[in-house]
Amino acid sequence: MLEELKKKVWQANLQLPAHHLVTFTWGNVSALDRETGYFVIKPSGVPYDELKPEDMVVVDLDGNKVEGDLNPSSDTPTHAVLYSRFPELGGIVHTHSTFATSWAQSGRDIPCYGTTHADYIYGPIPCVRNLTKEEIDEAYEKNTGVLIADYFKESGRDVMAVPGALCKNHGVFTWGKDADDAVYNAVVFEEVAKMAYVTEQINPRVTPAPQELQDKHYYRKHGANAYYGQEGHRDGK
Amino acid sequence: MLEELKKKVWQANLQLPAHHLVTFTWGNVSALDRETGYFVIKPSGVPYDELKPEDMVVVDLDGNKVEGDLNPSSDTPTHAVLYSRFPELGGIVHTHSTFATSWAQSGRDIPCYGTTHADYIYGPIPCVRNLTKEEIDEAYEKNTGVLIADYFKESGRDVMAVPGALCKNHGVFTWGKDADDAVYNAVVFEEVAKMAYVTEQINPRVTPAPQELQDKHYYRKHGANAYYGQEGHRDGK
Amino acid sequence: MLEELKKKVWQANLQLPAHHLVTFTWGNVSALDRETGYFVIKPSGVPYDELKPEDMVVVDLDGNKVEGDLNPSSDTPTHAVLYSRFPELGGIVHTHSTFATSWAQSGRDIPCYGTTHADYIYGPIPCVRNLTKEEIDEAYEKNTGVLIADYFKESGRDVMAVPGALCKNHGVFTWGKDADDAVYNAVVFEEVAKMAYVTEQINPRVTPAPQELQDKHYYRKHGANAYYGQEGHRDGK
Amino acid sequence: MLEELKKKVWQANLQLPAHHLVTFTWGNVSALDRETGYFVIKPSGVPYDELKPEDMVVVDLDGNKVEGDLNPSSDTPTHAVLYSRFPELGGIVHTHSTFATSWAQSGRDIPCYGTTHADYIYGPIPCVRNLTKEEIDEAYEKNTGVLIADYFKESGRDVMAVPGALCKNHGVFTWGKDADDAVYNAVVFEEVAKMAYVTEQINPRVTPAPQELQDKHYYRKHGANAYYGQEGHRDGK
Repeated sequence: MLEELKKKVWQANLQLPAHHLVTFTWGNVSALDRETGYFVIKPSGVPYDELKPEDMVVVDLDGNKVEGDLNPSSDTPTHAVLYSRFPELGGIVHTHSTFATSWAQSGRDIPCYGTTHADYIYGPIPCVRNLTKEEIDEAYEKNTGVLIADYFKESGRDVMAVPGALCKNHGVFTWGKDADDAVYNAVVFEEVAKMAYVTEQINPRVTPAPQELQDKHYYRKHGANAYYGQEGHRDGK
Repeated sequence: MLEELKKKVWQANLQLPAHHLVTFTWGNVSALDRETGYFVIKPSGVPYDELKPEDMVVVDLDGNKVEGDLNPSSDTPTHAVLYSRFPELGGIVHTHSTFATSWAQSGRDIPCYGTTHADYIYGPIPCVRNLTKEEIDEAYEKNTGVLIADYFKESGRDVMAVPGALCKNHGVFTWGKDADDAVYNAVVFEEVAKMAYVTEQINPRVTPAPQELQDKHYYRKHGANAYYGQEGHRDGK
Repeated sequence: MLEELKKKVWQANLQLPAHHLVTFTWGNVSALDRETGYFVIKPSGVPYDELKPEDMVVVDLDGNKVEGDLNPSSDTPTHAVLYSRFPELGGIVHTHSTFATSWAQSGRDIPCYGTTHADYIYGPIPCVRNLTKEEIDEAYEKNTGVLIADYFKESGRDVMAVPGALCKNHGVFTWGKDADDAVYNAVVFEEVAKMAYVTEQINPRVTPAPQELQDKHYYRKHGANAYYGQEGHRDGK
Repeated sequence: MLEELKKKVWQANLQLPAHHLVTFTWGNVSALDRETGYFVIKPSGVPYDELKPEDMVVVDLDGNKVEGDLNPSSDTPTHAVLYSRFPELGGIVHTHSTFATSWAQSGRDIPCYGTTHADYIYGPIPCVRNLTKEEIDEAYEKNTGVLIADYFKESGRDVMAVPGALCKNHGVFTWGKDADDAVYNAVVFEEVAKMAYVTEQINPRVTPAPQELQDKHYYRKHGANAYYGQEGHRDGK
């Protein structure tokens, strides 16, 4: 089932090492099939160069395996919660990419220091807190998703305008309208994280980019008045 | 029209990812045809690996499209202003290259710390201020060009001796006598930016290279007494 | 003798430059044959691109050459001590990989700042002290092994849960159940070292990841209750 | 003339971009022919991918061209002085490699923080002062060689044990018994420079490696009691 989507998810997973976002098996991509409400995700712990489209696992929104010979990614419950809580998501990526993960390890949000960031992300990249021991013991992966989802609900921020989050002392989740879009955002997060790090080294007293500049860049690529790119490709990607 | 120039601009655009200066579509190259007064520029938001020479867009010096099926780069008005104000420019490049953009995000000029810089750039690389909200609202891309051009006019610095500028919280523009020369300078800016960053980390109290050393290196590659390179290739490239 | 193991050790050695862990000949891999009690190791100072399986040298646990035309790695006595003292080791790697070696040069343990570290290493990566002049003069390479082994004995830490150590002002040793596993850990150490360095630059007051998070990640990949990966591949690799 | 040596120097020059030590034409390699007393050097400003063995230029020890259609490297007088003053040199390399040049720009010697350094370089890598305006005006490139040579003479350090030097605000010279050996040392200098930089970031109060450890590593690869590598290859390379 879902053979076309499995192929897309497989290809999107291969984009992670191609963009230098993962070492070994340290990442995974999933994508949602809106008709069935199932999503397709990478199997757990299988090296990218051995992955085949038919290895992809089909899972429902409670995180239960629907089809597949292999175990799904151990992060499957996180994906399931995010798809459940945010119906606009069509693809999700998890990585331990070097610079974004270093920000996560530092426990800090990534401030918006420039237009590279503002072109794709509206406002700072949030770093959500550690789970408590109770939350870890109860359901670590599921509660990781709950924590991220609650952050967006409580802050009122839009998941499509802030297409990802850092998990303190852990790594990065990004998402988008489909698997490719989520991978694209994973690349953006890593590059933005690297530049924000270098920026602070060059000028320890740096402040975020002016709001009007952030607005200009975000809205020239997104929304009704966007004018970047070609007709019919108005999301700036 | 301008088929030869389109091919050159197409090739120069492909040099940006080849030199690791751009991620995805985050950059563009243009070149001027002095006879017609038109310039040729990359279309907006088209991935480099899908670009074809015939996709290049022909634009006049007011930034109006003269020929082409696709929308020109959203940065076209910046290029137009720079060509208008500085007739000596034959090619312009815009990138978000990692280290030069980090300096732009930090809001600092790049001091001349050594001969790698002085070989190609006379004096510090300027970082121009943010546009005001009014300037952004009126004409963001055009006013970016005006801001850069005014900097050179007011400072009295020579655009051919300082072949580029950083835009605060944004990215990098470089230029040169043609598209290849502008790309060459984009590579120089990125490498110089990386080394200046590392230099300050190694020695936070570092000062710029002595003026006589800067002069020696700049003028052994440029001007009437240059002696670097081979006869007929006296610009040090 | 041990032709199969020689081939495996040869292949594992080639993985070091493939993973950008060594420059020139600055590293070596060995693996133990439990039946004979001999181990197979890279010859000293031979470039990786000239290595052949039959060049591998067979050595006993006193570090004496058993078979081979070439001299074994100058670090052979270190390997011999580690295999003698820790019968669970099946493979050992030595490198001067950039970031792990920079931590070794700094003389600091690498704190556990996140799950990338905790997935494979339980607690900080230790950096053992310099040998004294007397220890160096008596038997430098052997005493390097003794120093590492004594650290584990005295600290009570488990060599399989802490699969390596830094040697102050020198470099990195990693190990595992076989040569491939030791190389895998060498890659982990380098990536973890790079991220820990960047993490401290981003947040100089950073503290280690909460113990419950470290436990969760380590034990979801190791031990009786592991659930990462596929049946029969329960070590998280 | 010197066809064999030209081919070796050509190949050694191509090793510079292969080892990521140069951008564009920013480096050069030469080698001495002891019989004629001439040396062979890269032509000035010619891109590496257009270089041919027959483009190499033959020069005498006063820096005068003996044979060749092209101008020799503008750094030729520096090479000539170094060969004249130190008859043991058989090859010289000049680069602007990123991390070594950043140390040069910072104006600091590179301390010996570990065995990677001590394996090939005895003591710190010196950074020689700026030339005065008078020295620059009189003969910049020649006086660069004089400055380096005088440093070694005055300090009593051995050019074969310290196979290179940094020039403040400029770049790096390395040397060795032939062109390949000089290139090898250029790679060592760059890697050592990168690790020393990262080391100081990790531990700003770091001190050099103990002298007995430096001695142990240097002398296990060099001199009468060396035991690294294979018989007849006792220089540790």
